[in-house]
Amino acid sequence: MTQPVRHDSMRARNLGVVLGEVHRNGPITRAALAEITGLTKTTVSKMVGDLLDAGMVAESDALRDGERGRPGRAVSLSGGRVAALGLEVSVAYLSVCVVDLTLAVRVSHTQAVDNQVASPVETLAHLQKLAHRAVDEARSAGLVIAGSALAVPGPVTGGLFCTAPNLGWSNVRVGDLLNFPVTVENEANLAALGELWFGSGPLDFLRVSGEIGIGAGLVIDGRLFRGAHGFAGELGHMIVSPDGPACRCGGQGCLEQYADQKALLRAAGLARMPDLLTHLQAGEKRALRACERAGQALGIVLTSAVHLMDPGTIVLGGIFAPLFPWVHAPARETMTARLARMRRAVPELTVSRLGVDAATLGAAGQVIHRIIADPGTYVTTTQTGLAPR
Amino acid sequence: MTQPVRHDSMRARNLGVVLGEVHRNGPITRAALAEITGLTKTTVSKMVGDLLDAGMVAESDALRDGERGRPGRAVSLSGGRVAALGLEVSVAYLSVCVVDLTLAVRVSHTQAVDNQVASPVETLAHLQKLAHRAVDEARSAGLVIAGSALAVPGPVTGGLFCTAPNLGWSNVRVGDLLNFPVTVENEANLAALGELWFGSGPLDFLRVSGEIGIGAGLVIDGRLFRGAHGFAGELGHMIVSPDGPACRCGGQGCLEQYADQKALLRAAGLARMPDLLTHLQAGEKRALRACERAGQALGIVLTSAVHLMDPGTIVLGGIFAPLFPWVHAPARETMTARLARMRRAVPELTVSRLGVDAATLGAAGQVIHRIIADPGTYVTTTQTGLAPR
Repeated sequence: MTQPVRHDSMRARNLGVVLGEVHRNGPITRAALAEITGLTKTTVSKMVGDLLDAGMVAESDALRDGERGRPGRAVSLSGGRVAALGLEVSVAYLSVCVVDLTLAVRVSHTQAVDNQVASPVETLAHLQKLAHRAVDEARSAGLVIAGSALAVPGPVTGGLFCTAPNLGWSNVRVGDLLNFPVTVENEANLAALGELWFGSGPLDFLRVSGEIGIGAGLVIDGRLFRGAHGFAGELGHMIVSPDGPACRCGGQGCLEQYADQKALLRAAGLARMPDLLTHLQAGEKRALRACERAGQALGIVLTSAVHLMDPGTIVLGGIFAPLFPWVHAPARETMTARLARMRRAVPELTVSRLGVDAATLGAAGQVIHRIIADPGTYVTTTQTGLAPR
Repeated sequence: MTQPVRHDSMRARNLGVVLGEVHRNGPITRAALAEITGLTKTTVSKMVGDLLDAGMVAESDALRDGERGRPGRAVSLSGGRVAALGLEVSVAYLSVCVVDLTLAVRVSHTQAVDNQVASPVETLAHLQKLAHRAVDEARSAGLVIAGSALAVPGPVTGGLFCTAPNLGWSNVRVGDLLNFPVTVENEANLAALGELWFGSGPLDFLRVSGEIGIGAGLVIDGRLFRGAHGFAGELGHMIVSPDGPACRCGGQGCLEQYADQKALLRAAGLARMPDLLTHLQAGEKRALRACERAGQALGIVLTSAVHLMDPGTIVLGGIFAPLFPWVHAPARETMTARLARMRRAVPELTVSRLGVDAATLGAAGQVIHRIIADPGTYVTTTQTGLAPR
C-alpha cells in the first residue's frame, strides 16, 4: 500500500522542483535542469514532458548549455494555457482579473457597486456573474483557469469564513455562495502580495490598506507575514493614544478612530470621499486639518510598527493613495521626529501604483505561485476549467 | 573552471540534505534516506560515510526499513564530537555554554559581573577567559567546538558592530576583541531562539526581554523574525502614549519610560532590583503601584503588538520573569479589555523558564542549526577546535 503513495509524492515533488527551476532560471535546457536539480536526465525529461503536455512550459530555441555541453532545446514557462482567477469584494466595488502562468494580466474588470446595501448572497451572485464573464473571455484566448482566490475586507478563518463588519458580513461561508472553488483571504494580505508581484516595489515592505477600517500586509524577503493565526496586520487597531476615543473593537484610541474614512469625513464635516478630495484640492482648511491629524496618527502607529517589525519601506494604498499628497508630510514628520536618532534610515513612505487592482492581482498571483510550487495536482486537472460544482 | 565548483556545491548540498533528514527522521537507514531524498544509494552512502568520519552521525542498531526492505544499520545524529559555544554579555553578568549536535547542554557557566563600569576590552577579555575554560572542559569530554555565537544587549549591524547603550558600547567591533571567530547577535533574538529550542514553548511566540532597555524576539512557525534590516523587536520603543516622557531614542512615551528597570526603580523610589523584589514581597505599596503601572504600559504595547504581529503566546523574560507575579495581572487585564472582543483567544502571557540562560543557549543552538543546515564546511574543519586567529 505504501509504495504507490511514495511514488506519487515523489513525482509531485520532482514536478515542483523542475517547474520551480524553469520559473527561476528559464529558458533552460533539460541537461542544465538535471545538473541543477540533481535528478537524473531521464526523470527530468519525463517531468518536462508532463509539463509540456499540461501547457505549463514551452520549448524555445536551442540554447548552448554553459560552456561545455552541446546545444539543446530550452524550456520556459508558458503563458498559453494555465491561468488563475483573482477576485475582490470591496465596500465600493467588485473586481476580477485573469493572470496567466507568466503573471501577465490577461483580463481585468472593476465595477463600482455599493456592497454595503446588498446581502452577501446578492454581492456574491453579482461577483459570480463578473467571474464567469472573465473566464469566458480567458477561455476564448485559449486559457484554462486552474484555480481562483478572493480578497475580502476582513479577517478570514479557516480559509473560508469571512467576517467583514464594513460589509455587514458575520462569519459568511463565502465558498458556499459561489459555484466554483475559491480560496478566501484578507484584502490587506493580498494587496501586499499584489504589490510584491505586480508593483515595482522592493522585497520588504509594509503595505497599508485603508477604506472603512485600516489594515496592513507585511512582506519580508518576498514572503507575506501572516502571524500565528493569520490575523497579523491589524494596523487599524494599534493604539495611537491609550485614553483616546472608544473603538468598535472594544479598545480605545485605535488608529481607525483617527484616520479611517469615517474618521476623516467626520473631522472634515463631509459625507463622501469625493467631496473630501474636492475640498482638499480647493485648500479648504477643515479638510486639510483633518488630513494633517490623520497623518500624524498614522505616523505614531507606523513608528511603533517600524520599531516592532522593521519593514524596508511603507506603501500607502486604499484611501491613502488619493490622500497621499495631504497625509504624507505629517506622517513622515511624526516618524522622522521619533525614529531618526535610533535608525539610520527611516523607512520611506511611498504611494501604491496599483490602486484598486492590488488585491485582485495578489489573489490571482497567489494561485499562480501555488501552481508553480506544486504543479502535480494541476498537471492532471487543468483540462476541466472553472468547473461548476 | 566551472565544473569543480558545481560539484563541490552539489556535495555540500547533498551533505545538508542527508544530515537534515537524519536530524528530522533519525534513526534512519541508508535505504530510507535514499528513498526520501531522491539521491542514489551510492551518493547517500558516500555522504553518510563523510558524516561518520566527521563525528556528526553515529550508527545505531539494525532497523527494519518500513514493511518492505531488509533490516539495515540505522544512522542518527551524534552528540559525541561536534559542539557549539554560546556566549552572552549582559549588563549584570557574563555567560557561556557548550551544546552538542543533539542540543544537549554539556557545559554552562554564568558569572555575575558589573559590565557597566568595565570597558569593552575588559569585558570581552573576561568573557574570553570564561570561553576558553568552557572549551577546555568540552575538549576533555571529547568535543570539538565548530563555531560560536555571542548575544549582546543591543542592535548589531553587519553581524559584527554592536551598539549597546546600557554597556556604554558604541559601534564596538566585537569580533576584533576576541581571539576566536564569533557571530554576534542581539540578545532578544537569541533568547527567543533559546526559548524555541530549549524551552517547552510553542512554535509561535513573542519573547519579551527586559533589563535596562526592553527588547523582544518574535518566533513564527519555528523561525525567528528579524525584519528587513535585522532590527525588528524593539518593543521598548513602541509608543505607550504619544505625549509621554521623552526617551533617549529621541521619541516620546516609549515603553522603556514606563516599564524598564530604571523606570521601575524610579517609580518605586529604590536603587537596586533586589530591593524592589524585597519590597514587593513585603507588599510595600509604592513598589506594588510601580509594577502595576509598568504592567499596564506593557499591556498597551502588547495590545498593539498582537494586532500587528499576531503572536501565538507571549513569554516574559529578563526582569519580567522575577517580576511576573506583579506585572502579569495588570498587563493581562489591559490586553483582555482591549483585545477580547475582536480576537477569540487573547494570547497567553507566560513566564520564561530558562531565565538568564535563554540567550546563551539560543546562541549555541543557532550555531548547531547552521551546522546541520550546511555541514559541508564543518566536515573538513571540525578537527581544528576553537582556533586562535
